[in-house]
This record gives sequence, structure tokens and C-alpha cells, in this order.
Amino acid sequence: MTDELSEKTFAAVCAMADDAACAQRTLARSSTDLKNGLLLDVADALEDHAADIEAANALDMSDAADSAMSVGLLDRLRFDADRIASTAEGVRHVASLPDPVGTMVRGCNLPNGMRLNQVRVPIGVVGMIYEARPNVTVDVAALCLKSGNAVLLRGGHAARRTNEATLGVIARTLADHGFDSSLVASVDAFGREGATALMQARGHVDLLVPRGGAGLIRAVVENAKVPVIETGAGNCHIYVDARGDLTKALPIVINAKTQRVGVCNAAEKLLVHRDVAEEFLPVVANELSRHGVTIHADEASLAIITAVGIDDLRIVPAEAADWDTEYLDYEIGIRVVDDLDSAIDHINAHSTGHTEAIVSEDYSAIEEFTQRIDSAVVMVNASTRFTDGGMFGLGAELGISTQKMHARGPMGLEELTTTKWIGYGTGQIRP
Amino acid sequence: MTDELSEKTFAAVCAMADDAACAQRTLARSSTDLKNGLLLDVADALEDHAADIEAANALDMSDAADSAMSVGLLDRLRFDADRIASTAEGVRHVASLPDPVGTMVRGCNLPNGMRLNQVRVPIGVVGMIYEARPNVTVDVAALCLKSGNAVLLRGGHAARRTNEATLGVIARTLADHGFDSSLVASVDAFGREGATALMQARGHVDLLVPRGGAGLIRAVVENAKVPVIETGAGNCHIYVDARGDLTKALPIVINAKTQRVGVCNAAEKLLVHRDVAEEFLPVVANELSRHGVTIHADEASLAIITAVGIDDLRIVPAEAADWDTEYLDYEIGIRVVDDLDSAIDHINAHSTGHTEAIVSEDYSAIEEFTQRIDSAVVMVNASTRFTDGGMFGLGAELGISTQKMHARGPMGLEELTTTKWIGYGTGQIRP
Repeated sequence: MTDELSEKTFAAVCAMADDAACAQRTLARSSTDLKNGLLLDVADALEDHAADIEAANALDMSDAADSAMSVGLLDRLRFDADRIASTAEGVRHVASLPDPVGTMVRGCNLPNGMRLNQVRVPIGVVGMIYEARPNVTVDVAALCLKSGNAVLLRGGHAARRTNEATLGVIARTLADHGFDSSLVASVDAFGREGATALMQARGHVDLLVPRGGAGLIRAVVENAKVPVIETGAGNCHIYVDARGDLTKALPIVINAKTQRVGVCNAAEKLLVHRDVAEEFLPVVANELSRHGVTIHADEASLAIITAVGIDDLRIVPAEAADWDTEYLDYEIGIRVVDDLDSAIDHINAHSTGHTEAIVSEDYSAIEEFTQRIDSAVVMVNASTRFTDGGMFGLGAELGISTQKMHARGPMGLEELTTTKWIGYGTGQIRP
Repeated sequence: MTDELSEKTFAAVCAMADDAACAQRTLARSSTDLKNGLLLDVADALEDHAADIEAANALDMSDAADSAMSVGLLDRLRFDADRIASTAEGVRHVASLPDPVGTMVRGCNLPNGMRLNQVRVPIGVVGMIYEARPNVTVDVAALCLKSGNAVLLRGGHAARRTNEATLGVIARTLADHGFDSSLVASVDAFGREGATALMQARGHVDLLVPRGGAGLIRAVVENAKVPVIETGAGNCHIYVDARGDLTKALPIVINAKTQRVGVCNAAEKLLVHRDVAEEFLPVVANELSRHGVTIHADEASLAIITAVGIDDLRIVPAEAADWDTEYLDYEIGIRVVDDLDSAIDHINAHSTGHTEAIVSEDYSAIEEFTQRIDSAVVMVNASTRFTDGGMFGLGAELGISTQKMHARGPMGLEELTTTKWIGYGTGQIRP
């Protein structure tokens, strides 16, 4: 990510961003009907050209398999007819969502007779650096176009032929609608230098969103001169309270940990109140073991779990580093806590600020937990896996922000806008 | 701003931020009544101790005069009983404003039966680096406390005794209300290293706001590892349209340029449509000259203005650099433009994105201008000087953001919050 950047590449990427900005000014003033018509045609075109995209994807998949890509990553790279159809359906869903552009955030008459409006407007040129998930290319293009933004994409190297085929379809549809195809452009031709150029292009790119592993995010945050929104680091906790309903707690923990382990909203840590530890830990450890999950246990939970006989139990003593680790795998850290305060303190000290859940029937404990936990999302008696733009009704998401500035949590259309104040006067001057 | 930073100072400032964060967690959960009571007592205490603060200020003023500080800066440094009273009144006004904490931004029931709320919460620890204006210390403290945030301040060296006296009064009032005085703390004791430490304290300070001259802002934006909101650069334009009412245009230009020249919302450029240039330019140039304003004129406006006899006219040909210059002085750039498009293109190319105004009676021209200008605030038939938190009804302002992320335009209480999603379930797991 921090490769040397040639002046030539930097100038070329800045020129692309400036072309995109120019085209974006037209898009920003386009009606919602026009943008929705464009998106519906993009969806149709993706399905019409699914065979071409699938063929390009087959070449990427074959190269990836040759280079010994893991099964999990290979699955993420796959973009077959079914996935293309479901991605196209996502584009149609974005078309069906309300347009944030032009909505009024605040409006009032000032004492001096002026009328003051604050309205939502597109951000401008968005840069996106992401890994080899071809559907992200389409999701991001759809969200950016609907919200009136241009986007420069840097996708993972492994998906380059898939992305090229997909972006070709989008470019032709843009042209058919009289839009400049620079609205959705890729800097993949510049290789890793393209990503570095996006990070440096202050004044040309308005916002940069990295989406992928912790290494990618850190590299972008540390090196970017362009404003960045951090996404996706998820050391998510579930706290089972003294008055937690254990029949709810068990499926929530198993769902949050095992439904998909490689995603940012999967649970990584389980904190259990000591009053229910003896009852709950053997049950949950047994079920986690059945799902092949290795437990990193603190002293108290280790003693309780190993005291009962559990088949195929995988358990190791937790080390200090475990509490800050996002496993993204069939592993979980478990700790017994003395009380609600300890649980909250532990979470606020070790969380990445993504999603934490409490399982409890105690009104006051829930109020304490939801108010004092300092994360983007707090779940009460529900799986951490619900933190998702689609689940929240935002349509496809650009990513899940774990920072506090501008956007926090799943980023949908509204998070892709900024605001503009407009004051309507009749000759007022300041006294 | 980029001095060497000793490990000792960095550790000390981080420890202050962590103490502030700890105290902030209590403030964040305090009721609006409690916070308002605190602010009203701060206002009273400032007035009760006005003599002490004024005495400290007299020493700062005397040192500043000895070091040949300009009359304008000396005036900004002055914090006498009248100004203390008006600052205290500002604190009372902040107390009277609605509390943004806890207000619901969005709320819905999800299809799976969960209840999903997005609510406003404080940001955490705010860092503020500003120049020698003692009222800013109080304004910022009041806004941060009301919005549930702690604040670390780095004020200008010239105001250090004034700020010390002011912060002493605030600290005692915090203690009287049972709050930790680390909620409003100064890093001035560390000198310039204190500012550098604030910029580096990622993970300890949540947001850094620089407020002051262009050099200060640039140094902070370029060096900070903490999220920054840029404020205050204002190369503001007024465009007088072909169908502008010249009887409105004249007082607007004179007010925006001359009412206060050292502020970010003062007009720095005047663009005049060629159809009204012959009529308007001699009139406005005459009035500007009467106010001692030097005109940097493009070729067309130079020809028109110098063709008539104006007493005490100060006029020079504009150079290319003028169009990007924020004079903050009795100077203005004037250009004749062929049409609305040229005016918009010129502004979007040269503006700092603060405030631009159009003077016109033409509905379509106004719609074009307000939609296509890419700045925080667009004024129609009103002075650029209205871009101000107080004028907008936001109470005292933290600064005027000229960036697009998080906050754009005057930053009041709401801009000092972020959001948190809370999902209330009954055992839901993700299918």
C-alpha cells in the first residue's frame, strides 16, 4: 500500500479524479427519476452480460486457485450467474430507496427575515480501496451513483478481470444514458500505485473508504492525505448478564460466532456474569465445540468448562493479547466477569467500537449497557450479525464505519452526502 | 506547530486526555438540567471573578503591547468586564439551547421484529487549538460541556494568563458541581509541544479542531494523526448578476467587505456581470474607496473604474495569485464575468468552500447558483457576514467547517455529537 508513487501515475490518477468531478457536477443535478432509470438499466445490463462477466471471473478464479488461494477467499472471489443476479437485485433495491440528495436537514426563518435551509448534497468524488469481492464493485457504484457521487475504485488484484468486465457493462450503460463513464472508473491499471495515488490525491478525491482486512485499513488510515472513513474492524463482544435469558443467549452466541466467521460483525468475545457462569458456560462450550470453535478461556471459565466432560472440546488459556484480537475464525475468547460494570469496562477497553450485545431481561442493566458502551452499534437480546446496511434497511452498504466522525455504523446513501446551507435574503446586511 | 515532541510531554498529554475521557463518561450520562445548572453557574462565576480575569488580561495585554502586537490583534486579545459579561451571556444562551444528546436521528421497527434506534451521543474528548482570543476558551468550554464532551485546550501564548484565570473559574465551578475539573483542561503548560502532542494523540483525543489563521490550520491538517475538522479559511465571493438589484448589491458588498475585515466570512472577491458592470462598478468602487479598500481589478473592471474620477481611489491590476488570496484586510479582488456560468466556474475553481453570495432577482439564476456552488454556505441577496453560529441560531460556534466530512459550515452543539445505533431484540438471530 505504501509503494513508491511515480509522478506520472499520481498525475494520471488526479486527472481521472478531476474528470470524475466534472462529470459528477452533472450527475449531482440529475433528477431522482434519471438516476433510478440508470440504475435499473445497470441491473438489467449486468444480467444480460452475466455470461461475459462469469467468463472473466472464471479466469480470475483459475489464476487464484493456481496461486493456492484459500477456499474461503476463493468463495468470496466467485461471481457466477446466481451472484450476478442477486447483485443486480441489490442495484434495483438501491433504485427503490429514497434519494437523500435535496432532503432538508434543518430549515428556519432567521429573526432578520432571512430564510435558512440546510440541505443534503453529494460529497463529490469518492475513492474506494477494497479486496477481491466482485459484488462490492457493483454495490459501491450503485450507492455512489444514486447519491450523486462519482467513484474511483481500486479493487483487489485477484478480481481484476471480473471487475474490468463489470465496469465495462456499467460504463456502457452510463454512456447510453448520456453520462460520462468517468463517473465510475477504476485505477486498477496502475496496480498498487493506483491505491497510493488515491490516498495522496487531496483536493482531487473528497473521501476515501478502505474496505477489507485490518492491514489494508491501517495502511490507508496511516498514509492517506485524503479524508478517510475507517471501516470494518470488529472485535465484537456478547455479554450474558446475571438476569440473561439463557435460552436466548445460547442461539445468539452460536449465531454470532459461527454463522459466518470471516465477517466483521461476527462475535469474537463472550463475557459471562459469574452468577450464571456455572449454568451457562458448560452448555455454550459444548455447542461451540460441536461447531468446531476453539475457546480461549480466562482462569475462571477454564475451570468451569474443563470440570465437565465435553466431546471434542478445544480450549486453551487466554493470553492478554487475546482480548484485543479479532480472530475472524472458529475461535472465541471467554471471560467470567463479576458484574455489569466489569463487563462494560472490559468492552470499552478492548473493543474496536463496532458492535456489542447484551443478553438480559433486566431493564436497568440494559439501560446502563446501551448508554455506557462506546461502540457504533449496541444490540439487546439479538445477534451481533445484524449490524449490516441491508439488515438495517439502508440497502447495500459501502462499509461499516468504526469511527465517530461523519458516519458511524453501516454506511448507506445518506452517509454518502454532506450538507449545504442556503440563506435566502432580501438585501440583509449584518448590523 | 511541528516542534520536536518529548516522550514525557506526549505521555503527559495522553494521560490528561485519558483522565478527561474518564470524567467525560460521567458527563455523558448527566441530565440536561444538571448540565444547564453547571453552565449557568459558570456564567455567574465568570462575572463574579471578572476583576481577577481582567487583571490577568491586563498583564497579557501589557506584554503583547511591549512585543509590538498589532492594534487589531491587541483588540482581539482584550477581555475586559464588558466582554466577560457578554461571553457569560453567551454561556447562558448555550444553556438555553436544546440538548442534542439523546435526540433520535432515525428509528424504525425491522421486519424481524427488532426495534432499531439511532441516537445522538457525545463524541468524547475534543482537542482545540486556537489563537489569542480569550472568549473562545469560554465559548468552546460551554459548547463541549453542554454536548457532553470533555475538551483539551491549547490557546495562544499571548493569552496564557487570561486563559489560566478563566479556566480556574471554570474548574472551581466544575468541582462545586461534583464534576472532575479534567473535563476542561489546558495543555498550555507544555508550550507549543502541547499542540503537537494533541495532534499525535490518536486513540486518546477523538477530534481536533484548529481555529485561527491559515498557517495554523494547514500545520494541524498536515501533521495531525487525530481526526481533524478544518475551519475558517474564507476566500468568499459575491456575484452581482445581470438582473441583480444594484440598490441591494451596494450595501451587501460594503457590509461584507468592510464591517470586519479580519474575519473568515468577510467578502474577498466581487464578480460583476458585464451587463451591469458599467453601471455598478463606478458606484461600488467609489464607496469602497471611501472605506479605504484597495481594489485588485481585472482588465475589464480596471478600465471601467479608472475611466471615471474617484477620490482617493486605490486600485492595482489583479495578478493571478489574487484570485486565490484571502486578504483579511481592506483589499478586494474585482472581476467582470461574461455570464452566470463564468461566475460559477470561477468561484468553484478559486473558493475555499466557505461562503459565496449572489445578488439577483432572477429565479433561474439563483437556482443555478445555489445548486452548483460547492461551498458550505450560499447566500442569496444577503451579506456573507451572516455565516456565523450565532446568526444561524446555533449559539456560540466552535468554528466554521470548510470541509465536507462530519460538519460543514458553523459548528454548534449538534456537530459536537456522533451517533450510536441501538437494536432492541427478543432473541433474534440472523437467518
